[in-house]
Amino acid sequence: MGLKGIAAASAAIVALSVGSAQADEGMWTLDNVPADAIQKAVGFKPDQAWIDNVRLSSVRLAGGCSGSFVSPNGLVMTNHHCVSDCVAELSSAKEDLMKDGFLARTQAEERRCAGMEINQLVQITDVTETIKKATANKAGAAFADARRAAIATAEKECAGGDATTRCDVVTLYQGGKYHLYKYKRYQDVRLAFAPEFDVAAFGGDPDNFNFPRYCLDMSLLRVYDAAGKPIGSPNHFKWSKVGAKEGEAVFVTGHPGSTSRLDTMAQLETARDVFAPSYLIHNAEKRGRLIEFMNRGPEERRMALDKLTGLENGIKVWKGRHQALLDPEFMSKKRSEEGDLRGAIAGKPELKAIVGDAYEQIAAAEQKYTVLFPKYAFLEGRRAFDSDLANFARLLVRAAEESAKPNEQRLREFGEARLPALKQRLANPAPIYPELEIATLSFGLTKLREQFGPDHAIVKAVLGKRSPEQAAEELVKGSKLGDPAVRQKLFEGGKAAVQASDDPMIKLMLAVDPEARAVRKAMEEQVEAPVEAAQAKIAQARFALLGDSVYPDATFTLRLSYGQVKGWTEPDGTEVKPFTYYSGIYERATGNDPFDLPPSFIKAKDKLDMSVPFNAVSTNDIIGGNSGSPALNSKAEVIGLIFDGNIHSLSGDYGYDGRRNRSVWVDVRGMAQALKTVYGAEALAKELGL
Amino acid sequence: MGLKGIAAASAAIVALSVGSAQADEGMWTLDNVPADAIQKAVGFKPDQAWIDNVRLSSVRLAGGCSGSFVSPNGLVMTNHHCVSDCVAELSSAKEDLMKDGFLARTQAEERRCAGMEINQLVQITDVTETIKKATANKAGAAFADARRAAIATAEKECAGGDATTRCDVVTLYQGGKYHLYKYKRYQDVRLAFAPEFDVAAFGGDPDNFNFPRYCLDMSLLRVYDAAGKPIGSPNHFKWSKVGAKEGEAVFVTGHPGSTSRLDTMAQLETARDVFAPSYLIHNAEKRGRLIEFMNRGPEERRMALDKLTGLENGIKVWKGRHQALLDPEFMSKKRSEEGDLRGAIAGKPELKAIVGDAYEQIAAAEQKYTVLFPKYAFLEGRRAFDSDLANFARLLVRAAEESAKPNEQRLREFGEARLPALKQRLANPAPIYPELEIATLSFGLTKLREQFGPDHAIVKAVLGKRSPEQAAEELVKGSKLGDPAVRQKLFEGGKAAVQASDDPMIKLMLAVDPEARAVRKAMEEQVEAPVEAAQAKIAQARFALLGDSVYPDATFTLRLSYGQVKGWTEPDGTEVKPFTYYSGIYERATGNDPFDLPPSFIKAKDKLDMSVPFNAVSTNDIIGGNSGSPALNSKAEVIGLIFDGNIHSLSGDYGYDGRRNRSVWVDVRGMAQALKTVYGAEALAKELGL
Repeated sequence: MGLKGIAAASAAIVALSVGSAQADEGMWTLDNVPADAIQKAVGFKPDQAWIDNVRLSSVRLAGGCSGSFVSPNGLVMTNHHCVSDCVAELSSAKEDLMKDGFLARTQAEERRCAGMEINQLVQITDVTETIKKATANKAGAAFADARRAAIATAEKECAGGDATTRCDVVTLYQGGKYHLYKYKRYQDVRLAFAPEFDVAAFGGDPDNFNFPRYCLDMSLLRVYDAAGKPIGSPNHFKWSKVGAKEGEAVFVTGHPGSTSRLDTMAQLETARDVFAPSYLIHNAEKRGRLIEFMNRGPEERRMALDKLTGLENGIKVWKGRHQALLDPEFMSKKRSEEGDLRGAIAGKPELKAIVGDAYEQIAAAEQKYTVLFPKYAFLEGRRAFDSDLANFARLLVRAAEESAKPNEQRLREFGEARLPALKQRLANPAPIYPELEIATLSFGLTKLREQFGPDHAIVKAVLGKRSPEQAAEELVKGSKLGDPAVRQKLFEGGKAAVQASDDPMIKLMLAVDPEARAVRKAMEEQVEAPVEAAQAKIAQARFALLGDSVYPDATFTLRLSYGQVKGWTEPDGTEVKPFTYYSGIYERATGNDPFDLPPSFIKAKDKLDMSVPFNAVSTNDIIGGNSGSPALNSKAEVIGLIFDGNIHSLSGDYGYDGRRNRSVWVDVRGMAQALKTVYGAEALAKELGL
Repeated sequence: MGLKGIAAASAAIVALSVGSAQADEGMWTLDNVPADAIQKAVGFKPDQAWIDNVRLSSVRLAGGCSGSFVSPNGLVMTNHHCVSDCVAELSSAKEDLMKDGFLARTQAEERRCAGMEINQLVQITDVTETIKKATANKAGAAFADARRAAIATAEKECAGGDATTRCDVVTLYQGGKYHLYKYKRYQDVRLAFAPEFDVAAFGGDPDNFNFPRYCLDMSLLRVYDAAGKPIGSPNHFKWSKVGAKEGEAVFVTGHPGSTSRLDTMAQLETARDVFAPSYLIHNAEKRGRLIEFMNRGPEERRMALDKLTGLENGIKVWKGRHQALLDPEFMSKKRSEEGDLRGAIAGKPELKAIVGDAYEQIAAAEQKYTVLFPKYAFLEGRRAFDSDLANFARLLVRAAEESAKPNEQRLREFGEARLPALKQRLANPAPIYPELEIATLSFGLTKLREQFGPDHAIVKAVLGKRSPEQAAEELVKGSKLGDPAVRQKLFEGGKAAVQASDDPMIKLMLAVDPEARAVRKAMEEQVEAPVEAAQAKIAQARFALLGDSVYPDATFTLRLSYGQVKGWTEPDGTEVKPFTYYSGIYERATGNDPFDLPPSFIKAKDKLDMSVPFNAVSTNDIIGGNSGSPALNSKAEVIGLIFDGNIHSLSGDYGYDGRRNRSVWVDVRGMAQALKTVYGAEALAKELGL
C-alpha cells in the first residue's frame, strides 16, 4: 500500500547544492537516463537497448499505478492495492474476493476488470517549441487558453482518432519542457490472481509506510486484444530465481504521480498552512464516519473497505508531508536552497532579466489560491458531492457541454484523446451501494454547509430546507445513474438529453455547474497560469545553471530510479535490516485485524521455508504512483515488487534523503513461494518460469 | 453554546501599546476593577458596594461555566448547555429531557443534578509573598515541588476541613501574583427549568459562534442547603423589564476559563504547529465516529448528543484559534508587540537583569513540550482511554495512591481541599452507556496504536494480541465501575482494595499509571516549571512598566468585563445589527435538524409578540467559561444571558479586537416571553418578578 497515485496539492528545489543530486536520488525520464552517474553509483551502465527494453516492459495503470509485463503472453505484475477497486467490484455479498482472494487456474477463468486501462509507452516526442510558440508573450487567461488549445491539438494529432492510442502532453521542469507521450492503450484487462486482503495488506493502516513489513501486496493481470486473445508481450521482465543480496544494485521503473521538489517557499507554505490542515481535518472526519459505518455489519464493511483503505493511505501520506513542512530543520534547508538559487540568479544579469519578479508572482498567486481554495475544493473538487453517482452526473453534465465545443476549447479531460477512457468509465458495471453513497454524500453536504454557512446561496441551492442527510437520501435514492445503460444513454443523448433529464443528481450538477466552472476558471487564470509562467522562468534559469543534469518533478510519466538493497539507521540509533522473512509474519500475526492471516497462510505454514525473504527495502527514490513498479537487477530481472515507502519517505514529495528514505517491496522469492506453496498456482508459476 | 470552559493548551501580549487596553478590552479581577476607565468608556463608575453585590450575586459552576442568583430563594440562571450533562443524565429511553425539555411547576418537582457543584466567591486574599518565599531561588523540579507544597498548605488551611468551603490558589499574571480564592460550596443543585435542546441550541453546529442567532440557551437551577431547603440568596440580580437599547452599557460577570494573551511567540507557535493540528485532526475523526454512531438509531442519538455537541464546540473553537495563528497579519502584530516589550525591557538595565534569558528559556521548554506532547496527551490526558469508566478507574487508582501521601506532596487534584468534589463525582449515579463507551474507547485505543505503532511497549501492554475493538469490548463489559456503589467501595478501601481489584479497567489503569505519571512529571518539570519561572520574570518586568493597569490572563476565576450593546461591520462591509427578534426564528426554521423548532414553539407561535428581542450582541471581552454569565445594566439588573461569542471572538484567546469581537446573549425580554407565553412557567415567572 502507500504508493498509489495521490492527487497532490500543487508542485522545490532539492539538491540544488549545485547541480549534483544526492547519490541514488532522482526519478529520471527514459530519454535522459544518467548512465554515467548510475555506473558510478552502482557499477553498471545501462545502454540504449537495456533502456528500450525496460521502457516497453513497463506499463502504467491509468487509475494511478505502475506495473510490468512478466511473461510473453500479456501477464502483468502489479500490487494488490492497485487492483483492489476491481477486486471489490467483482465481489458481492455472496462472493467476497477481497476477503477470499482470487486465482484463475486457467485463462478462461480470468475475470475482466471493467474499469481498468493499461498503457505502454511507445514514444516520447519533444514538443516544447510548438507549445512555447503558441503561448509566446501571453499571460493569465490568454496564456491558459493558448496552451490548452496547443496541447489539445498536439494530443489529437498524435492519437489520430485511434482509440487504441493515448497521447498526453506532459509539462516537465515546470514548463521548462513539454513532451508528448504516446501510449498503446489496452482496455481489456483481466484479473488472474489476487491474494486475500488480509495478507496483501497485512498490518493494515498501523503498518502502512512502516518496515519491517510483511505484505503480499501483489496481483497478476492479463492484457487481452480486441479479439479477446491474450496479447503478445515480447518485451517483459523475467523473475529472478535467486533474488537480490544486500548491497546489490536495484532499478525501479514506474510512474511516480507528482512531487513538489521544485516548489518555492511560498508554495510550500501554502501546502503547510492551507492545503494540509484542510485535507487532514476534512478526511479525518470522513475516516471516522467510514469506520463507524463499517461497524454496522460485515456487508457494510465489505462495501467500504476499499474506500477506507485508500483514504487512510492518503491521510498517512499527508500527515507525513505536513510533519516535514512543520519541521524547522527541513524548512530551513529548503529556505537556504532557495536562497542559494536566487543568489546564483542574482549574480548573472542575463538570468536576473529572465526570472524578474517570478518569485513574487508565485507568492501573489499563492495568496489567491488561499482565497479560492475552499470553493474550489468543495465545488470543483469532490468534497461537497462525495458520491460516485454525483461524479457520474458531473461527468455527464460536463461531457454534454464540452462535446459541443471545438476540441481545442474543451476542458482538457473532455478532449478527443480522452474520450475512450471516459466511455469506459461510464460503461463500468461496478456496483454502487446506495447506503454507502448516502453516508458519504451526507458527510460532504454537511461539510459544505459548515464551510460556507447555512445562509450561503450555494448551500441554499443545494439543500433548500432539507438537512444534508435528507438531501443525500433523496438524491441517491432518486438517481438512476447507478445503471451503466442509463449513463450511456444520457451520454449519447448529449446536451438535450442531459438538460431534459429529471434525475436529481443530474439536476443538482447542472445547478452547481456554473459556480464550479467559475471557480475552476479563476483558479486556472489567477493561480495556475501565473504560477506556471513564473515557474517556467525559474526553470529556464535553473537549466542555464544546471542543464538537464537534474530530473523533472514527477508527472505520472515513466521514470527510472536506481539504488541498492540497503537498510537504514533510525535517528535513535536503531538499525533496520533490509530483509524480512516468512518466519516473521507468523510471529507478528495476532489472529486479529489487521494482523490476522488468511486461512491459506495458516494452512500452508508447515510446508513453507521460513527463511525465504518476504519484504525488502532499497534506496530507490520513488513516490505515490510507483505502486506496482518492478524492482529489477542489472539484468532487468524482477527481484521484487514495489508497494510502499518507509515512514521517512513521506517527506519525499519535497526532497530525497538517502540516509533514510527507502522503497519497500515484496521480494520475488517471497512471491514465488506464495504462488507455488500457499496458493498452488501451478499454471501461473510455470508461465513465470518458476 | 460555545463558551463552556475548554481545556486549553498553555497561555500574549495584547494591547501592550503602552499600558492602555483597547476600549472595552479586559477581564478584570474583582479586586482590581478599573472604575475610572469604565466611567470613561460607558459613563458609569461602579463603587465598592456595587462591586461586592455583583461578586456575591455571581456564581461559578464547577464543571466549567458561570451563573448568577436571580431570586432571593437560591434560583440560579445559567445556560442550557451548562446543564446539558445533567439533563442528559436525568434522561432515559423513556423520558428524554434533552428532547422534550423540563419544567418544575413546584419546588418539589425540581430534580437533583448529581454531578453539579456551585461556588460563590466570598473572599480574595493575596498570598503572593507566601508562595514566592517558598519557591525563592528554586528551579525545575525543586521549584515545582515547593510551589505545590505551599499551595496545598494554603488551600488546606483556608478550607479548614470544612466540606462546604472550597479554596483555590490562583496564579495570576503568569506568576506575577498568587491569590487565594475562597468559595462557599454548594453540592445540592436541582434543575428547575430547561427548554428543549432544539430551541436551546437552535441552528446547532452551523450557527454556533455565528450571529444573527436565535437560541434560547437558558436554564434555571436552584441551590439547596444541607437540610434540603432552598438557600437564601440576598445578593441576586433582578431581571430588567425593559431590557437594553443599542449603545447602552453592559457589564458581564463570569469565569472565563483561560486566555493566552501574555504568551510569547514561541508558545503561540507551539499552539499553532503542535497542539492545534493534533487536537483538530484527532477530534475530527472522533466527531465522524460519533455522528455515524448516532446514525444507528434514536437511542444512540440520545446517548451521544451531549458528547457530540461539546466536541463540535471544541473543534470550532480550535479551528478559529488555529486560523488566527495561521493569519500572517495577526501573527506579525503579535510579533511586533513582543518586540516592543522586549525593546522596552532592553532599554532598562534593571529590567534586563530580571528578565535575563526568560524568552529563550520558554522557547527551549516549548521544544521539550513538542517532544513530550504525544505521550502526555495519550497517557496522562484522555486520548487513549476515551471512556467514562476508564476515567473513574484512573481517579480511583490515583486517589488510592495519593491519599497515602502527606497533603502537600499529592498531585494537586487529590489535595484535601479537592476531596469533596472527587467524592461527589464518584457518587454520581448518571448512567453510563456501554455501547458508547466501547465506541469511544475503541477509537482511543486505535489512535494510541496509530501514534506509537503496534510494536511500542505501552501499546503491547494495553492491547496484547487484541484489536482495539476487542480490547475495548472486554474492558467495558468486564468493568463494574458503572455502579456508584462499587466506585465508592473501592475509594473507601484505598490502596489495598484497588490493588486487589480484578476490574479490568482498574488493572489497565494500574498498568499504565507509572508511565502516565512519568510523562506528567517530565511535563511539569521540563516545561511547566521553567515556563512559569520565566513568565514570572517577564511579568515582573511588565509590572514595572505597566503596573496593574493591565488585567491577568483568564484563570476560571471571577472577572468583570464592560462594554456596550453594539453590532459590527464585517470585513466585506456587511453591517450586523445588535438584536434579533422572535420573528426571525420562525423565518429561519426549516423543520429539519438543526433548524427545527420544538412543538412548544410551533404551538405558541400565534400568541407571541414577534417584535420582542431574542438574542443580542455587545462588545464585552469574554471567553470560554463565561457561558451562563449575566449581562447586566448599570443598575446591576439582568438584561441578558451570555451564551456565546461571534466568529471573530474565536481569536480572543490571543487578543481582543473591539472592532469585531462580540459577546452573544439571550435577551432578557426573550427569556421572559418564553417562560410566560411558550412554557407557562407561572411560578418561576412570578419568582423572577415578571
